Amino acid sequence: MPQPPCAPTAVRRVACIGAGVIGGGWAAHFLARGYDVTAWDPAPDAAGKLRRLVAAAWPALEQLGLAEGASPDRLTVAASLEEAVADAQFVQESAPEKLELKRGLLARLAAAAPAGAVIASSTSGYPMTDMQTEAADPGRLVVGHPFNPPYLIPLVEVVGGEKTDPAAVEWASRFYEAAGKSVITMDRELPGFIANRLQEALWREALHMVAGGEATVRDIDASITEGPGLRWAFMGPCLTFALAGGEGGMAHMLDHFGPSLKSPWTRLEAPELDEALRTAMVEGCDEAADGRTIAQLAAERDQGVIDVLRATGRLPRPRSDEAGGTE
Amino acid sequence: MPQPPCAPTAVRRVACIGAGVIGGGWAAHFLARGYDVTAWDPAPDAAGKLRRLVAAAWPALEQLGLAEGASPDRLTVAASLEEAVADAQFVQESAPEKLELKRGLLARLAAAAPAGAVIASSTSGYPMTDMQTEAADPGRLVVGHPFNPPYLIPLVEVVGGEKTDPAAVEWASRFYEAAGKSVITMDRELPGFIANRLQEALWREALHMVAGGEATVRDIDASITEGPGLRWAFMGPCLTFALAGGEGGMAHMLDHFGPSLKSPWTRLEAPELDEALRTAMVEGCDEAADGRTIAQLAAERDQGVIDVLRATGRLPRPRSDEAGGTE
Repeated sequence: MPQPPCAPTAVRRVACIGAGVIGGGWAAHFLARGYDVTAWDPAPDAAGKLRRLVAAAWPALEQLGLAEGASPDRLTVAASLEEAVADAQFVQESAPEKLELKRGLLARLAAAAPAGAVIASSTSGYPMTDMQTEAADPGRLVVGHPFNPPYLIPLVEVVGGEKTDPAAVEWASRFYEAAGKSVITMDRELPGFIANRLQEALWREALHMVAGGEATVRDIDASITEGPGLRWAFMGPCLTFALAGGEGGMAHMLDHFGPSLKSPWTRLEAPELDEALRTAMVEGCDEAADGRTIAQLAAERDQGVIDVLRATGRLPRPRSDEAGGTE
Repeated sequence: MPQPPCAPTAVRRVACIGAGVIGGGWAAHFLARGYDVTAWDPAPDAAGKLRRLVAAAWPALEQLGLAEGASPDRLTVAASLEEAVADAQFVQESAPEKLELKRGLLARLAAAAPAGAVIASSTSGYPMTDMQTEAADPGRLVVGHPFNPPYLIPLVEVVGGEKTDPAAVEWASRFYEAAGKSVITMDRELPGFIANRLQEALWREALHMVAGGEATVRDIDASITEGPGLRWAFMGPCLTFALAGGEGGMAHMLDHFGPSLKSPWTRLEAPELDEALRTAMVEGCDEAADGRTIAQLAAERDQGVIDVLRATGRLPRPRSDEAGGTE
């Protein structure tokens, strides 16, 4: 593909295509990070809706910390798709999840955007290989999958399709990092990417339980927010489970609870816990622990849970905070 | 079953059987809540290990707030199981996850504990129906399933077996609430209860991804802590997904994303999204929302994520906190 118009860190002008919850959330994020944002959406009331969404998000964005010069006034709503992207150094597409629509839209965007400008799709599940089929220059099309709301949740999953230039994937990852996101760059297409596969497995089990009358919506939500969810805000499921193995960590956890993998604890069948998987999990946890001992991780977890309980109002703040804070 | 020795709120003496990570964590929790705790574990070094575990947890427990008179000195390590439970008003069993072991142990506990005293098992997966087979009076045996570490994570899932007196389930739920836990009382046995079914589905999908080389441990953990995990600390997966439907809430979410249920986004097959399931999800979310509008929930979510980001050190605390706090 031709060179992008500028380096990932030099981007000033971003185009947001689609002004729904995700597209509008992206616009709010980029505005808060100090970019000029040009948006477009075919809906008749798009401009008003978008400005209301940005206005609603702005107090949260002020708390998160605005970049210098950031302003909702730097939002322009364009009259056409072509006008929206004509001058863009990066394009974020957040159209409804319809494959044919995305295909045509990405082809139009690729035809209208400056040569080499990377175009990312917010799709929550389509592989880029399936979406880039109609574009004249598919090399610059990537997936940049955010979480709702994009202006608050740091994660973006970046992955290309078969016809994507690896340089575009790399450029997009660096750009998102510069724009304040937490990036996972994937080296292959995987339906649902990573986070959605994980939360979809949990979600489907939840739906099965409700369908079978085994649990209520309220029980399901409480079982997460009062349980594992408290840890997952700062320590992922793998490291968390490593701590369930006590001082033996993930190795002991797998050896001790491995047989439970075959229990009917969920409708999802477990993989075979062979030596290769055991090694991958143990070494992966060692790498993620990055030198921290199990005792250190446990202390971090304990403090993390306390801080999260406090932050979410389930535990009073320390007196010193109450005296000094003005929140 | 005979009447319990006292009302759930009048309990002063608790026995903890098993002094591993879970049993020791329970002992720490009950001590911090001001109970007298008598513990027993067959391991030769159990007393020392238990006291070290309680000592390690105590700083966290001080932050959580100790009950009046709470002290690690109120821990007694008994020389035998019978001695440990002789005077107990409630018994928490946290032995290793081996069915035969649990069966025999629960029978011994039921024979030795005061008449009517409720005995709860920390089992992470066995149905009480399978564990209570050898007890002379199985009516007072319940599952009280905690999360690691029991002194920090509020959730306890309470459920009885076929031979459990419903009054024992009710008594245990009230006792745990009085002891500061967040209780889900289940009306039927379900392998893995609720929270473990949900996290096990996620965990198995994670293991499949590692086994297939599709994602690393680090990516998996980051995809949760930087993504959905930030919301799950205070808002469960159902209400969170209701917000993905915009102003239409869960109904719009299911109607719009329903087809994605059939996508290969996880190895777990989805249930049929029929009218009954749709209604159960929509009404369940309405009930959980408890009068809060989607806009109010979205504002709560935004503030919650900001607070959690701040609590976990990913966002600076407001200046006023820094100036006034002494943390």
